[in-house]
Amino acid sequence: METMTPAQLEAIYEKVKNWGRWGTEDEAGALNLLTPERRAAAAREVQSGEAVSCSRELPVEPSTENPNPALHMMIRAGDDCVIPGVGLETAMDFVGVAFHGMATSHIDALCHVFVNGQMYNGRSAAEVKSTGAHANSIMVARDGISGRGVLLDVARHRGVSWLEPGESVGPDELEACEASQGVRVGEGDILLIANGRDARREAQGPWSPIEGGLAGLHPSCVPWLHERGVSVLGADGVSDPLPGPGVEGWPMPVHQCCLVAMGVHLLDNLRLDRLSEACASAGRWSFLFTVAPLRIENATGSPVNPIALL
Amino acid sequence: METMTPAQLEAIYEKVKNWGRWGTEDEAGALNLLTPERRAAAAREVQSGEAVSCSRELPVEPSTENPNPALHMMIRAGDDCVIPGVGLETAMDFVGVAFHGMATSHIDALCHVFVNGQMYNGRSAAEVKSTGAHANSIMVARDGISGRGVLLDVARHRGVSWLEPGESVGPDELEACEASQGVRVGEGDILLIANGRDARREAQGPWSPIEGGLAGLHPSCVPWLHERGVSVLGADGVSDPLPGPGVEGWPMPVHQCCLVAMGVHLLDNLRLDRLSEACASAGRWSFLFTVAPLRIENATGSPVNPIALL
Amino acid sequence: METMTPAQLEAIYEKVKNWGRWGTEDEAGALNLLTPERRAAAAREVQSGEAVSCSRELPVEPSTENPNPALHMMIRAGDDCVIPGVGLETAMDFVGVAFHGMATSHIDALCHVFVNGQMYNGRSAAEVKSTGAHANSIMVARDGISGRGVLLDVARHRGVSWLEPGESVGPDELEACEASQGVRVGEGDILLIANGRDARREAQGPWSPIEGGLAGLHPSCVPWLHERGVSVLGADGVSDPLPGPGVEGWPMPVHQCCLVAMGVHLLDNLRLDRLSEACASAGRWSFLFTVAPLRIENATGSPVNPIALL
Amino acid sequence: METMTPAQLEAIYEKVKNWGRWGTEDEAGALNLLTPERRAAAAREVQSGEAVSCSRELPVEPSTENPNPALHMMIRAGDDCVIPGVGLETAMDFVGVAFHGMATSHIDALCHVFVNGQMYNGRSAAEVKSTGAHANSIMVARDGISGRGVLLDVARHRGVSWLEPGESVGPDELEACEASQGVRVGEGDILLIANGRDARREAQGPWSPIEGGLAGLHPSCVPWLHERGVSVLGADGVSDPLPGPGVEGWPMPVHQCCLVAMGVHLLDNLRLDRLSEACASAGRWSFLFTVAPLRIENATGSPVNPIALL
Repeated sequence: METMTPAQLEAIYEKVKNWGRWGTEDEAGALNLLTPERRAAAAREVQSGEAVSCSRELPVEPSTENPNPALHMMIRAGDDCVIPGVGLETAMDFVGVAFHGMATSHIDALCHVFVNGQMYNGRSAAEVKSTGAHANSIMVARDGISGRGVLLDVARHRGVSWLEPGESVGPDELEACEASQGVRVGEGDILLIANGRDARREAQGPWSPIEGGLAGLHPSCVPWLHERGVSVLGADGVSDPLPGPGVEGWPMPVHQCCLVAMGVHLLDNLRLDRLSEACASAGRWSFLFTVAPLRIENATGSPVNPIALL
Repeated sequence: METMTPAQLEAIYEKVKNWGRWGTEDEAGALNLLTPERRAAAAREVQSGEAVSCSRELPVEPSTENPNPALHMMIRAGDDCVIPGVGLETAMDFVGVAFHGMATSHIDALCHVFVNGQMYNGRSAAEVKSTGAHANSIMVARDGISGRGVLLDVARHRGVSWLEPGESVGPDELEACEASQGVRVGEGDILLIANGRDARREAQGPWSPIEGGLAGLHPSCVPWLHERGVSVLGADGVSDPLPGPGVEGWPMPVHQCCLVAMGVHLLDNLRLDRLSEACASAGRWSFLFTVAPLRIENATGSPVNPIALL
Repeated sequence: METMTPAQLEAIYEKVKNWGRWGTEDEAGALNLLTPERRAAAAREVQSGEAVSCSRELPVEPSTENPNPALHMMIRAGDDCVIPGVGLETAMDFVGVAFHGMATSHIDALCHVFVNGQMYNGRSAAEVKSTGAHANSIMVARDGISGRGVLLDVARHRGVSWLEPGESVGPDELEACEASQGVRVGEGDILLIANGRDARREAQGPWSPIEGGLAGLHPSCVPWLHERGVSVLGADGVSDPLPGPGVEGWPMPVHQCCLVAMGVHLLDNLRLDRLSEACASAGRWSFLFTVAPLRIENATGSPVNPIALL
Repeated sequence: METMTPAQLEAIYEKVKNWGRWGTEDEAGALNLLTPERRAAAAREVQSGEAVSCSRELPVEPSTENPNPALHMMIRAGDDCVIPGVGLETAMDFVGVAFHGMATSHIDALCHVFVNGQMYNGRSAAEVKSTGAHANSIMVARDGISGRGVLLDVARHRGVSWLEPGESVGPDELEACEASQGVRVGEGDILLIANGRDARREAQGPWSPIEGGLAGLHPSCVPWLHERGVSVLGADGVSDPLPGPGVEGWPMPVHQCCLVAMGVHLLDNLRLDRLSEACASAGRWSFLFTVAPLRIENATGSPVNPIALL
């Protein structure tokens, strides 16, 4: 990517800071922009009633992409299904996941990342303890995140199947993408960026984002996200390109600026190819979008299955 | 509850069977009634844009209500937040849950219950193996369940804070409830029944549903649910009253008839008090309702955070 | 129990401190007393070759005694046993446990307890991070703990089936117990104290040690343990009586003095009734005793199955 | 390896069958050979009192060798160590593991492997259910396995640092190894075979045994193990060479013959380099060996830390 200096990144970080904007005690950040009125308007986006999941299957097998898979184990199956004493024939299972992995569709709470020991709204990293996050946990999104979703499919705009790992996308390209798709990202919108990761994985097999890289947004997009008033940012990658800009202290500037400075929750490792097909077919790139994090107190996020309703 | 004979329960079960109704290979069951058109119509229910979660907090502490709590553990917290080699300051956690517990808001897949070794559409219980469910898994709801939700608050209708454990509700009372609330359950609707479990728990503390019982629907409601064409049934309890009817082979007839005969997915242990307040304030008892199960292949359900949008 | 003042407890704690005794970097504590020579001598205790486990079954069901049970789940069972591609017919499982629970036989590492923010040998509690213990972990016992075990069965000595919860045992009674059993605890020995918890549980069912209490050693035993040079202390309870002495800052003085001041590892929730029977039959109360903690780096202990060889 | 025909493998399997030898209900298998007298004699092997663990560190990071690592997570660390209401300053953690992985030192119970749907002593694979093993579980070793251990270091005998993956060792070489080391494997002994896997891993880094192979015993060793009356077999690999003999139905003949036909428990993925050094220094290759499986009811094995006492 185009190189950045520490001073440039620091300046972006300071420029987009929303600390104090919604009060000194605020933990919702840019979710404040997603007002009930905007939720109601988003519902009016629905036309056909087609529903599309933007989640990948929970990865239960290890792979180069996700070396630390989820656990899914049966507690009781059909071979021994009668609960003693109760008589009900039943099957039950357990699911567990370190959900911040690189193949799990998940939401990052604002306590997921710190910059110089601080998180959103100036709270100390020390408030995220071994016993759980005591500030900026995912519980701020306990009533779900419903709003207008907008998908920008950069690969489709470029006319390629996918962006190569490490490639980055600047704000001009986002605007060109808007223009070609006939949509404009507005205040309170949930913005989704597709870089073709799904297509590349299907064509070439899974790869390690840590070792092999991922396409993502150039840090210069951050002020643009701020100006537009994006409430939540999602991607088929992790929004940041990997490897990062190579600047000391700024390994993942989009994560750092969104989560810490702006208070913008992130959706990582989404599956966006099916949504892109549906949008292209419908000729519309906005929809009602619902993210329903599990209500896990003191958590740094949640695995999610975000649903677009077209 | 009013006593039932084995023959009566068997007759209900046979009467409401949807096996073959949507084809011999169908795994969606009554979700077939939730058409895109009905989803689009449900979106038009949204007026104020108020969002209300119908999930309880994931229970991470043991209690009499839920002796088998979820695991929520930090992998990395603020005290040691820098990932070696990467430089990102971060916090991460793990969550795991045997989600069919009695305090976890969850959805039951159609493979969760068997009757005489069979599940929905005549599939054998043997297809639910120690390695996972190979039929009727929750993946049939992979694109989420979005539709018109209708809440019937039986406690409010009776003018009490809660129904006592073991009390049951018949179809006449459901209709009286509809009348008093000014709403009518129609085909494809997601029906939620509130019995005041949240209020009782807050007033008297948690109790064991297994030992202390729960209020629920009398088995005679099952044909009514079938006639109305309910697509999904949810409750603040588990839909069935506990203890059950005391009839050999029918420990939980609502579960057995809904999941196995009708192919109606169930939502257990919801939190409905806040939704009831919101509906009462709005003077409307229908809303857009979204359930987004995690995409867990071969799973018997999922923990969920269902969202009502009013 | 006989009341203690803060000053008395503080004095005991200071008196038995082994900090610096084996060097400023030492993490082994009283395990230093268990020399190869003493291990070899312990092996010469073996006569009949009878082996007796001192562990309880891993508690996989919730109970009042242990509300947070272990997870034991099959990954693959006989119903679906052929590994695809490999052809081996196999069954596999997963086990997980928060092993410091009140029904799990486990060993406490020296990093398990702090007093005023310090652990054994003056290390800071801050070295035990959300990512694991970076000092005084169980890895100091990586080669196992093998030595001469001595069982003192206080209930048998008193002629009762069990000590009641909350009862405590003083050093005089330990010496009377030694005399009646014909054994003397010496330097480097692993001392096990039986209070009849197993017999009480079998007679009356499980109870919550937190709410119902446990018998244990009076804090005045601590100097006696120090004088005798005990290397490891174990009990069918948790060594400390519950409730504790009711002195601010000293909720579990035996844990605090053994783990922090003396560097004596603790074995909690052992099953000692079968060992007591075996010792009584053999007319000997010493034996080769082997504890083999799992090699878990950065861990605060381990579940264990200690084996006595008579 | 030297090729084998299906008939040869079948003949070996039938020849070494111990079914019925210790009764039709027996679940202990060759552990019956490890009598109290032999345990007592094994204790007399101890001379110096040197203790050596034969376990690897529990693998908590994913690697090519072990893609499915153990979970080790802190529940409470030094940053938030005071238990509310109790006042104890403490740290606690959770450990969980699918222990049959290729880098975890573990014991295989006799229910771990089936041949044609049967396990040791003719029990059906169907007795190993989704809810756990109801026959031949690890609980047969509940009192631990203590006996005379004998280490044969094949790599040392060959004068190489390690055997290459896929290489196999025949009975003649085991006898040559005995001769050169001056030890003879006798009835009831726990036999450990070192092939230098630790040295190769340290020199070349970890590799996938599935993809890259492992050295092991040629199936022709099985009758030799049977004649000698080995009670338990362990290895730094998995006893079987990988890949296996390439014969339909016999992917891991040593596992299949030991666990199913002979009732010989297996210890997989041991660390034997330090024991080999200690034995070489002592000039003796036999010792007291103790394996203490966790008491996990219905389990197919256990993670273990076997201890040799020289």
